[in-house]
Amino acid sequence: MSSPAAVPPPVTEVIEVAGDWLPPRLAQVEERLAQVATGHGPELGSEAEATLAAGGKRLRPLLLLICAGEQGAESAIPAATAIELVHMATLVHDDVLDGAPVRRGHPTVFARSGRDAAVAVGDLLFSRAFAELAAAGGAESQVAELSAASVGLALGELAQRRDAYDLALDEDRYTRRCALKTAKLFESACRIGRLASGRPGIEDLGAFGREIGLAFQMLDDVLDVTGPFERTGKARGTDLLDGTVNLPLIVAIRRDPSLADLDLHGLDPAGAEAACDRIAATGALDEVRERARAAISSAKGSLDSPDFTDADRMVLGLIANALVERYS
Amino acid sequence: MSSPAAVPPPVTEVIEVAGDWLPPRLAQVEERLAQVATGHGPELGSEAEATLAAGGKRLRPLLLLICAGEQGAESAIPAATAIELVHMATLVHDDVLDGAPVRRGHPTVFARSGRDAAVAVGDLLFSRAFAELAAAGGAESQVAELSAASVGLALGELAQRRDAYDLALDEDRYTRRCALKTAKLFESACRIGRLASGRPGIEDLGAFGREIGLAFQMLDDVLDVTGPFERTGKARGTDLLDGTVNLPLIVAIRRDPSLADLDLHGLDPAGAEAACDRIAATGALDEVRERARAAISSAKGSLDSPDFTDADRMVLGLIANALVERYS
Repeated sequence: MSSPAAVPPPVTEVIEVAGDWLPPRLAQVEERLAQVATGHGPELGSEAEATLAAGGKRLRPLLLLICAGEQGAESAIPAATAIELVHMATLVHDDVLDGAPVRRGHPTVFARSGRDAAVAVGDLLFSRAFAELAAAGGAESQVAELSAASVGLALGELAQRRDAYDLALDEDRYTRRCALKTAKLFESACRIGRLASGRPGIEDLGAFGREIGLAFQMLDDVLDVTGPFERTGKARGTDLLDGTVNLPLIVAIRRDPSLADLDLHGLDPAGAEAACDRIAATGALDEVRERARAAISSAKGSLDSPDFTDADRMVLGLIANALVERYS
Repeated sequence: MSSPAAVPPPVTEVIEVAGDWLPPRLAQVEERLAQVATGHGPELGSEAEATLAAGGKRLRPLLLLICAGEQGAESAIPAATAIELVHMATLVHDDVLDGAPVRRGHPTVFARSGRDAAVAVGDLLFSRAFAELAAAGGAESQVAELSAASVGLALGELAQRRDAYDLALDEDRYTRRCALKTAKLFESACRIGRLASGRPGIEDLGAFGREIGLAFQMLDDVLDVTGPFERTGKARGTDLLDGTVNLPLIVAIRRDPSLADLDLHGLDPAGAEAACDRIAATGALDEVRERARAAISSAKGSLDSPDFTDADRMVLGLIANALVERYS
């Protein structure tokens, strides 16, 4: 298990291109996150600390700081911290919803301390996100962005629950759900960062974030079908077992309509693995990977305007590529 | 069942003393809450609308607007709306934790739509609270206050879970928990309102809010022991069944140490009623009522400073009295 501060290789490359200013800023975010974890007395510490230390790629803070740039990054530390806290709050609540025992190789708050503690820990992380922004001062537009993103996350979660087990789900509805549940926080990371930079191009960068967020979700969906456990930390077909109709399944049903008869309610882990094999056999995974690549291209296309420098395009392009490579 | 806009009698009296400016402001808050309920499409509408329409006394917005005063009330509408949204989010999540089927005579979101939807609806209401503040603009100090209050609510909830079933709980620990879980939002209502008024005395008003919040919780604890169901909408001894060690129980154990042998884990509803009778027999309820009255006196004492007018003292005193009367 990597330590929380360890940076995955593609991110290292991004840092090399972005410049020496980035690592100290990322370290500041890590330090703020650690302070949040330990700042509520020893009794809470264990819960929150385990959640924060479970790590993760800190993709959203990275994106936010990159978009803020060298000049804007220092003022964006609270927002970069806050966006990771919102992300974590969502994960903790998602694990309650999914009854998930393990995340990133560590037991979830849900598994360690039960549903009740997990709901409250999520609420706490969520509240601390806004407290972090407010303590920084002058961050009114950041509060607007982050609260709008949080509203989107909750609506996306509700959409996912409402659409659960619905094999007639279409791709439009899937995309709308992912735009809320996954892409919205990437979009906000880009927008908040650009706001902090004082440079124009906020809408374009928001579009960039949304597209790479969609690609991220599609590739995550593919991993749910392919596994292996050693890589994803969860069983193949976990989405199917949860009733979550993901893009590979939607595409597979289009290619092989007999899959529409799948009984998601009656699936056990072995049945889910078998369903994953059927989905893969349709060629749906390559189609979804292709769709993700197209989203990445579209993301890069958002940066064509003269508001962006070649240096912007290079570093943001690297992040976009890193997302794809991670899954390829 | 009263309609959501119906105002309980003591509140009517407060409005009479405060002035004609107050009812239109309260109506504006109601309107904003209705817009939040219906502003996320028909699919969410039913969830959120039912939650918001389940009503409640709107005590926190009332307190906030009173503290803002005639001059500050208009600018405080978003904050008054936001504080009620945070309160509601907490209720929705509490109902998940408690597995509560009914609140205020209506089925809870948890009961109607399940745990998953309830976690997400709570998250949504919570996010909307901050979005409401941010949309209003210029509310940075309000975001700081409200997020600090939300952190307190979550910490209080965690403390309650941690202390569950612990019959050795002492009064200090009980008070600290209630200061977070219940009193903090009253305190913030007062502070945010006073901030909006532009007048001094924020700390004193915060102390006023905290003390009436503590009184509110103590009297709520008494009602949990006395019932009746027709009045409280929940069975006697619901706290005991949840493992929540409340002040009447703590006081009763001091008066009758044999109560320390109570087996909270093994209680059924009939056993909880019997335990309530034993608690009442110790005279603990009168002691707790007396403690609540002392907190109300202490609250009023916070307003002695020349920062407050006689009119301030009169209207805030009425609110404090209304809390006690409601429970007497």
